[in-house]
Amino acid sequence: MTKMSQIWIENGRFVTMEDGEHVLQGHMVVTDDRITYIGAEAPTGLQADVQKLDGSKLAFMPGLVNTHGHAAMSLLRGYSDDQNLQVWLEQKMWPMEGKYIDIDTRAGSALAVVEMLKSGTTAFVDMYDRMDQLAEVVEQAGIRGCLTRGVIGLCPEDVQQAKLAEAIAFARDWNGKADGRITTMISPHAPYTCPPDYIEKFVQAAHDYDLPLHTHMSESIAEVEQNVRDYGVRPVQHLDNLGFFSRPALVAHAVHLNDDEIALLADRKVAVSHNPVSNLKLASGIARVPDLLRAGVTVSLGTDSAASNNNLDLFKEIKFAALLHKGVSGDPTVVPAIEALRMGTVYGARSIWQEDSIGRLRVGMKADFIAIDIEQPHFYPQTDIVSHLVYSGSGRDVKHVWVDGRQVVRDGECTLLDEEKIRHDAEASFERLLKA
Amino acid sequence: MTKMSQIWIENGRFVTMEDGEHVLQGHMVVTDDRITYIGAEAPTGLQADVQKLDGSKLAFMPGLVNTHGHAAMSLLRGYSDDQNLQVWLEQKMWPMEGKYIDIDTRAGSALAVVEMLKSGTTAFVDMYDRMDQLAEVVEQAGIRGCLTRGVIGLCPEDVQQAKLAEAIAFARDWNGKADGRITTMISPHAPYTCPPDYIEKFVQAAHDYDLPLHTHMSESIAEVEQNVRDYGVRPVQHLDNLGFFSRPALVAHAVHLNDDEIALLADRKVAVSHNPVSNLKLASGIARVPDLLRAGVTVSLGTDSAASNNNLDLFKEIKFAALLHKGVSGDPTVVPAIEALRMGTVYGARSIWQEDSIGRLRVGMKADFIAIDIEQPHFYPQTDIVSHLVYSGSGRDVKHVWVDGRQVVRDGECTLLDEEKIRHDAEASFERLLKA
Repeated sequence: MTKMSQIWIENGRFVTMEDGEHVLQGHMVVTDDRITYIGAEAPTGLQADVQKLDGSKLAFMPGLVNTHGHAAMSLLRGYSDDQNLQVWLEQKMWPMEGKYIDIDTRAGSALAVVEMLKSGTTAFVDMYDRMDQLAEVVEQAGIRGCLTRGVIGLCPEDVQQAKLAEAIAFARDWNGKADGRITTMISPHAPYTCPPDYIEKFVQAAHDYDLPLHTHMSESIAEVEQNVRDYGVRPVQHLDNLGFFSRPALVAHAVHLNDDEIALLADRKVAVSHNPVSNLKLASGIARVPDLLRAGVTVSLGTDSAASNNNLDLFKEIKFAALLHKGVSGDPTVVPAIEALRMGTVYGARSIWQEDSIGRLRVGMKADFIAIDIEQPHFYPQTDIVSHLVYSGSGRDVKHVWVDGRQVVRDGECTLLDEEKIRHDAEASFERLLKA
Repeated sequence: MTKMSQIWIENGRFVTMEDGEHVLQGHMVVTDDRITYIGAEAPTGLQADVQKLDGSKLAFMPGLVNTHGHAAMSLLRGYSDDQNLQVWLEQKMWPMEGKYIDIDTRAGSALAVVEMLKSGTTAFVDMYDRMDQLAEVVEQAGIRGCLTRGVIGLCPEDVQQAKLAEAIAFARDWNGKADGRITTMISPHAPYTCPPDYIEKFVQAAHDYDLPLHTHMSESIAEVEQNVRDYGVRPVQHLDNLGFFSRPALVAHAVHLNDDEIALLADRKVAVSHNPVSNLKLASGIARVPDLLRAGVTVSLGTDSAASNNNLDLFKEIKFAALLHKGVSGDPTVVPAIEALRMGTVYGARSIWQEDSIGRLRVGMKADFIAIDIEQPHFYPQTDIVSHLVYSGSGRDVKHVWVDGRQVVRDGECTLLDEEKIRHDAEASFERLLKA
């Protein structure tokens, strides 16, 4: 029998994210990949070789879950800002993305994973192509990934077939890999980039292989109007008609919704990835988050890619979610701090169907958690730690990160990745793409 | 003659904030408190004992200017969030503020100044009471402060007179102190907290002592409506009628403005301190920043206090200014990155009438500048440094800070302040206030 490893975090402040009392002063024990104790009293009956960590100057919380992104696009950070969407997409993003080869996807993916880990994200959703590259990075980096080959279907039928086959193969081959850290989904890119009969094939594949579905939906007014023009209904009804919501589904953006659509999403138990920064930066609009939450829809947070954000710090999305909807609604009580933090943790876990194993600090759950350096002026006075994390903290306050009980960031540095090489490779890939 | 100190920053990336080419790869020399060289070529004719700093892994830019805040309120960070304004103010803030004694004001002020310096703010505006306490902190900390005793005039005439006298005495006694790092203003708190005849006395004092004016204005719809009810005009016209804009003036918030008011502010050359995060958090509304900028109004950025923000990182305000107005206006080209950065530097300097000496990296200007650690994943690829600073950076990326040529932050730590003691004192004051 393999020897078990055990960590005892002593005298820490734990933001457990449990309902009711969500902050606990005390101790936590991790045995191998699971939390085996958490409580106010010191634990007993531990292994003789238990590793102790002084938690007195740290706050601990579940790792963050980023529910929408495109890691490889990190290479295009800052390459085009402050542009109209069509210019950004057609003149800047697509030409550069068209030049990507495997090493570029690998370089951008690794850069994104380093950035996410260091800022406290322990699980993330990613939709892109050349997904094998990203999956291998995830395997090596120790992070948790819910991955999917996103498919644009505006192409001849044989190309469509090949892409769908590739998406299915990726999802089937990688699901459960990396000790279960990798899970997969099936993803038609969006209703406006995939014909209805093509979307139906993804739905069928999701049934055949028992996989969830992910797509972009109702990000801009223009695409909603186009959907009505082309198909006579708005995107939510359109996807529902195609059977999309007969499977577990996560949709990104959902900015432009009417009341009926919100009710339908709630009824179908569709999870929404809210991407406040990307939606603001591209001027897509402001999602009706308070209404979605009131309707009982699971709303989590995504950064989208670094090309439209421009970083992958999920604490920033938490902050924007807590602040933006107060100002827009005129009601300072909406999206209170704890709810914004749930969007980044518990609701994130629920959005990728892993609420039973991650998103809270609870006995039996996976040991995916982070430690925040609270000995800093912006965390003083040390009154309400949830408020401080949401309104004052940032991903740059993250000191340590564990996934599956393994420490993947120590004192702000990734333990399993060569950060300097990754930065260098990203720079080299970007230079090559510029000249290609 | 005193020996001059000289620093040569070699091979740095300098965001000069000059019009046109605002980024320069090269060298900068600081002699005593001034920038004496900046250019692509290596400098010549330097002192034998010049101190060299390798700038190759850093980006340099002017220190940030925070144009509205209440430093001492840092003690109330996280004490009340997600509340309606009246509950927040009347049940939470005012009772606690009423218990402040000098040591609390000192403790909160020091906490705020540490936080600002570490996050790259080198000059700040502050309006509060017991201002001697803050002025002494500014003197010691090496930061630049534009300070003013804010006066609420809802009190008997003798108390009004005493407060006005105190405000004048502070402004007169401290103006130009700390080697000129301290400047002062005169401040009636707001049109809704000061009767018109009382505001006129501040205007007269500003003329008598040749001082600028600062006030809160049109932060909420309710106060605009009250102004119309009480005085028959909206706040901008009201202040103009009282002669307020006959002096150099900086107004905070200016959220609710109509077109005529924007035109009047432009005509009177009134500077506006935009506080996006505080305005969102208190659900005050969203200022018409693109319209103000188009009209030629100087718009700078303020954090407001940590009780309504909840931190003092001006990079966050820059980011919100760049993102928020795109999403609200539906135009992704408004408030581009460089304009948002100007709001935090050049326009900040202009708002406190110091554009000739701070806000840019230029020969002859004061050496108020900061160094950013760009060897981090969220600054890669190293393409557009202005974009990265605005959309990806944060105050936590600041490594070194100089004010008046003196290094006040080195490797992230304040050189002139005892940070641990300041955190401890802030905690102790807060605990005392809670029990008092």
